[in-house]
Amino acid sequence: MSNSFGQLFRISTWGESHGGGVGVVIDGCPPRIALSENDIQHELDRRRPGQSEIVTPRQESDTCEILSGVFEGQTLGTPIAILVRNKDQRPSSYTEMKDKYRPSHADYTYDAKYGTRAWHGGGRASARETIGRVAAAAVANKVLAQLFPNLEILAWVQSVKDIEAKVDAATVTAETIESNIVRTGDPDAVGPMTKLIKEMRTAGNSVGGVVECVVRNAPVGLGNPVFGKLEASLAHAMMSLPATKGFEIGSGFDGTQLTGAEHNDPFYMDGDTVRTSSNRSGGVQGGISNGENISFRTAFKPTATIMTEQQTVSSSREDTELKGRGRHDACVLPRAVPIVEAMTALVLVDHALLHTAQCGPHFG
Amino acid sequence: MSNSFGQLFRISTWGESHGGGVGVVIDGCPPRIALSENDIQHELDRRRPGQSEIVTPRQESDTCEILSGVFEGQTLGTPIAILVRNKDQRPSSYTEMKDKYRPSHADYTYDAKYGTRAWHGGGRASARETIGRVAAAAVANKVLAQLFPNLEILAWVQSVKDIEAKVDAATVTAETIESNIVRTGDPDAVGPMTKLIKEMRTAGNSVGGVVECVVRNAPVGLGNPVFGKLEASLAHAMMSLPATKGFEIGSGFDGTQLTGAEHNDPFYMDGDTVRTSSNRSGGVQGGISNGENISFRTAFKPTATIMTEQQTVSSSREDTELKGRGRHDACVLPRAVPIVEAMTALVLVDHALLHTAQCGPHFG
Amino acid sequence: MSNSFGQLFRISTWGESHGGGVGVVIDGCPPRIALSENDIQHELDRRRPGQSEIVTPRQESDTCEILSGVFEGQTLGTPIAILVRNKDQRPSSYTEMKDKYRPSHADYTYDAKYGTRAWHGGGRASARETIGRVAAAAVANKVLAQLFPNLEILAWVQSVKDIEAKVDAATVTAETIESNIVRTGDPDAVGPMTKLIKEMRTAGNSVGGVVECVVRNAPVGLGNPVFGKLEASLAHAMMSLPATKGFEIGSGFDGTQLTGAEHNDPFYMDGDTVRTSSNRSGGVQGGISNGENISFRTAFKPTATIMTEQQTVSSSREDTELKGRGRHDACVLPRAVPIVEAMTALVLVDHALLHTAQCGPHFG
Amino acid sequence: MSNSFGQLFRISTWGESHGGGVGVVIDGCPPRIALSENDIQHELDRRRPGQSEIVTPRQESDTCEILSGVFEGQTLGTPIAILVRNKDQRPSSYTEMKDKYRPSHADYTYDAKYGTRAWHGGGRASARETIGRVAAAAVANKVLAQLFPNLEILAWVQSVKDIEAKVDAATVTAETIESNIVRTGDPDAVGPMTKLIKEMRTAGNSVGGVVECVVRNAPVGLGNPVFGKLEASLAHAMMSLPATKGFEIGSGFDGTQLTGAEHNDPFYMDGDTVRTSSNRSGGVQGGISNGENISFRTAFKPTATIMTEQQTVSSSREDTELKGRGRHDACVLPRAVPIVEAMTALVLVDHALLHTAQCGPHFG
Repeated sequence: MSNSFGQLFRISTWGESHGGGVGVVIDGCPPRIALSENDIQHELDRRRPGQSEIVTPRQESDTCEILSGVFEGQTLGTPIAILVRNKDQRPSSYTEMKDKYRPSHADYTYDAKYGTRAWHGGGRASARETIGRVAAAAVANKVLAQLFPNLEILAWVQSVKDIEAKVDAATVTAETIESNIVRTGDPDAVGPMTKLIKEMRTAGNSVGGVVECVVRNAPVGLGNPVFGKLEASLAHAMMSLPATKGFEIGSGFDGTQLTGAEHNDPFYMDGDTVRTSSNRSGGVQGGISNGENISFRTAFKPTATIMTEQQTVSSSREDTELKGRGRHDACVLPRAVPIVEAMTALVLVDHALLHTAQCGPHFG
Repeated sequence: MSNSFGQLFRISTWGESHGGGVGVVIDGCPPRIALSENDIQHELDRRRPGQSEIVTPRQESDTCEILSGVFEGQTLGTPIAILVRNKDQRPSSYTEMKDKYRPSHADYTYDAKYGTRAWHGGGRASARETIGRVAAAAVANKVLAQLFPNLEILAWVQSVKDIEAKVDAATVTAETIESNIVRTGDPDAVGPMTKLIKEMRTAGNSVGGVVECVVRNAPVGLGNPVFGKLEASLAHAMMSLPATKGFEIGSGFDGTQLTGAEHNDPFYMDGDTVRTSSNRSGGVQGGISNGENISFRTAFKPTATIMTEQQTVSSSREDTELKGRGRHDACVLPRAVPIVEAMTALVLVDHALLHTAQCGPHFG
Repeated sequence: MSNSFGQLFRISTWGESHGGGVGVVIDGCPPRIALSENDIQHELDRRRPGQSEIVTPRQESDTCEILSGVFEGQTLGTPIAILVRNKDQRPSSYTEMKDKYRPSHADYTYDAKYGTRAWHGGGRASARETIGRVAAAAVANKVLAQLFPNLEILAWVQSVKDIEAKVDAATVTAETIESNIVRTGDPDAVGPMTKLIKEMRTAGNSVGGVVECVVRNAPVGLGNPVFGKLEASLAHAMMSLPATKGFEIGSGFDGTQLTGAEHNDPFYMDGDTVRTSSNRSGGVQGGISNGENISFRTAFKPTATIMTEQQTVSSSREDTELKGRGRHDACVLPRAVPIVEAMTALVLVDHALLHTAQCGPHFG
Repeated sequence: MSNSFGQLFRISTWGESHGGGVGVVIDGCPPRIALSENDIQHELDRRRPGQSEIVTPRQESDTCEILSGVFEGQTLGTPIAILVRNKDQRPSSYTEMKDKYRPSHADYTYDAKYGTRAWHGGGRASARETIGRVAAAAVANKVLAQLFPNLEILAWVQSVKDIEAKVDAATVTAETIESNIVRTGDPDAVGPMTKLIKEMRTAGNSVGGVVECVVRNAPVGLGNPVFGKLEASLAHAMMSLPATKGFEIGSGFDGTQLTGAEHNDPFYMDGDTVRTSSNRSGGVQGGISNGENISFRTAFKPTATIMTEQQTVSSSREDTELKGRGRHDACVLPRAVPIVEAMTALVLVDHALLHTAQCGPHFG
């Protein structure tokens, strides 16, 4: 169903931005994985609002509680339920939106589909929904670390509007990315990006950009033919995130500018290892990882909720105007970085278990 | 599993490029839909090899047989099995590839994952695999036509390498697209695109491009929150096609160059209908269709199998060279058009049934 | 996955008998269904421990909290998360069982499968796991009441060991069943059954029996051919309950004693309605409901945890003896009645949505 | 969906009794399993009509063709499609049934649900549907043989009407069972059972019975808690077969006659192996196999289609009478034996892959 992801490491998220809380149930996690709330909290802290001066000021500690599936510090193999309470709720900010649809937001379509919506907040369309994903991915990462000790998932802000970072995907480090509040991999881009985001917030406007992600030291053999292609799973995962409008892997859209002779990645032997001398495939061939870096980009549109007057309609079907209120990110990119990494981890762990089920515990 | 797609209108495809044939089983199709082999054959003919001078010359009539699920010209509500035999097989063309991996193809990764592969052809990575999708989509289209009589799915070649078509997605017609062998929507682009593809084939090289697709007169309410977002399903569908490297919907990657105030689609009342005065959302908001045109683009890389010498390795782990043989498209774009339409139909019909199950037969 | 049930009205339960709590996430519930915690609490109260002198004395109020998916008293169409905290935990009762496997319980197999187990209680094998099912079914019943206002699901204790109740499935009422602590449908059986259960408890022994269930005023058309047969779903549902050893529908095992001429249910017209003059089919033919009463029986073995010395082995693989401790039902039957009804409701609502998706909102 | 079974070794069956044929697609089969049509044909021959004087005389060789997924005698890891053509079709036998519903058959419910049905035969309710299951199970058995070389699945006719066989589940052999056309495990029961079936056929009547099945040398650890209990999967599998009315495992319904002290299976050490000295659990505890024999029974009702006049109604809603025609089994039991074994193999292989995915390739 629509709120579950993964076939074997299967997560089911729940929760609205306002209400009792948000959370996730993970089914299919291997047993005897060391796991504590600290493991999860660390990732939630990277995602949480109020973490810096360029993100939404909503005050949520996003403290998590593991309700089940862990005993004496280890997973049991049974469902892991994780709960995060909503604390800093301000439904009053949403009073006007009860009757007016925010342009390019989910208000109208939810109302049209369901005949109702949780108008006192963003409901399931709120970025708060991604808490369950990030919490589940913290568990996924523990499993991945055991299966593939050298595997590394690293995302960063590649661009904010027209400011492009210069980043070498092969060498960029988590330290560099986490050392700045934008979470870009290019120290020189931090200043201009920060400045632009602040200007936009001051103007009641918003801005989008691109998050790039690389998976280093992935095994050969993740992914399946046809509908289970690794890039299909990644595309599904990224395009399920709020505000995403595009996904590309390897050479992506630019790859269409090359001929086959230019685009193909030649194979060569590196000792006993089959390698490619270029990586326009983005680490995936025929839907299956080939051991090179898996690299892809996701486009995030500018935040829909802005603080300037916009033309819209009311739920009673009349033309009207609306000026956004509430606490929102003028740019979702800095907080999107851990979420992109989270969805990547969830895709990888699921494919790792699928591979093991069909082909055994050895990877190509 | 990896070879099935859809939750309620569920298709399971099977078959290698060489062997007994290819086909599909459709489970969950509504009963009492008029259906004959002609309905399916028409779409298969648009996809089949040998249809024009710019596609692969493999001679396959791709004649389909409905084996089950239809009685007295109507669907029974039980599984519809469709079979297409492979006829023009030339495994001899693949002898060299038995031991050498084609660069940027699936040969190496299949071998590494499964410890075996159908080296006498492209196996499941062959474009022949898409026959099952196209056949199933012909059935899906019959269901959609009954649910939404005005719905129209239209794809065309938007670019071949750096040749870009000029197409108005709101008005382009199937007649225009089908009137040329490239299947572009811009009559002025036909000549240059055809010329380029022929040049590439003569040179033993290949070329890629972008297919654009628009869904007109879609209902409001298709799609679900979170992992069931309509754009997530479309991205999954498109990125499951052979040779795809990117997907974008509405404003896509270019949308990141706009501010929120520029990017948002203002709502207005058009009589009793809620409309937007721009459509950077691409017809989907919060994962759910809003009644505007659903429009998206898919990037196809240049065909991997080319007829010039390339560096590669052998299955015995030695550096070597390989020159492609066999019959291949120098450009998959013309044949990709019906396949993109097919996957779109499969996504829409599945979401239509999902909506009906949860919210009843009325759309927003 | 193993902790989810249903395809469209999909529940995912979680929680161990000891730990943070137990609960459920419901995905796919139709929107605009009136729902409050009272609706759920009423069913949980019928299931909870400590409700009478013949069930386990563990003191749990089993107070539920709806965490998401409900707004202003109505379902939103988004996931409904329900939480019940564990309160009266006594892990000390389980100290001995940390190292010794209870005969015919799940201790050994969990340990063997997972290499770990939540030895401080019954873990997922505890009957506490069924709280999530009962809570979800309370929601299912609200949906069913809207779809089929006259539908009635009624279960009762048909036998305790060799004491058999005399019940007319066509006329027995909820009032009769709920009027006695055994939850049997036969007032004359209440005394003997109660006496036997008390004797068993006093003796540190236990006893099982049969729960019968009837669905009255079910629509025609629930269920699907082949693997989706209604009786297959019901069997799956009932045999997923703790302590069940058998399931039969309609004539069941006794039906094998008849010839076809004796066993077949003749059709006749009752006004405009197709009826059968007998109901050995148990309301289901070809896997699909025919409008007659759906009736089936489920066998529950005697509770495994008994308070007398038994031969067993330790986790260090030595022969030993074990005498049960903790608080357990000497007979699970009285509390099994609402659980059987719950699983029945979950099966019916899922099949109702499946039917609507494929065949539209009308039933045969 | 309704025509698929299994989560990882997933089969999708299709086909009506009359029409192009019947078949199955298997998705998720491990690669490099030796497989030929002979492996499958052997099992189909045990199931096919016309095999002896006590089964339906319909003449079908049921010759199978593997269409995909096998290359050079080994599985590829890609979908295995298997086709069996229908040959000996006699729709003329069904002319009268076009308008009259056979009592206790699927005619009425299919018509009511779908508004149509394949009246020229039994459609999906025909036992021909099980061909796909048996073919898929032949593949499953090859996988199981590799995983668990000593595992043995053995079913036999335990009773025909009131004639009960005397069989020791621990020692009965395939040779004994296959040596008689009834497929019972008790040589002394062959005569009476054969005589009864022949008498029934001569009288235009029919008879049912019970099939018992034992799995010997099963590993510890197959099955999952809650909805994935091994007995729940087996019950789902068996109750999805045509004509089944009941399922029980281990002590089953009779187990309710015992107290807990009598019913529990004491553990003891047999060298390094944990064993139980009785097996009322039927080899499954807490939903997970414990290494003892897995034993269960399935009740098959007498065949619905009989050759004597019966009261029924017409599709135009009038009372009428109907006398069956066509070729049918007077007793399905002899042919049900390989089908019960087939479903058992499909359950076991799926749970084996599920276990491997979550817990690794070692069993408890």
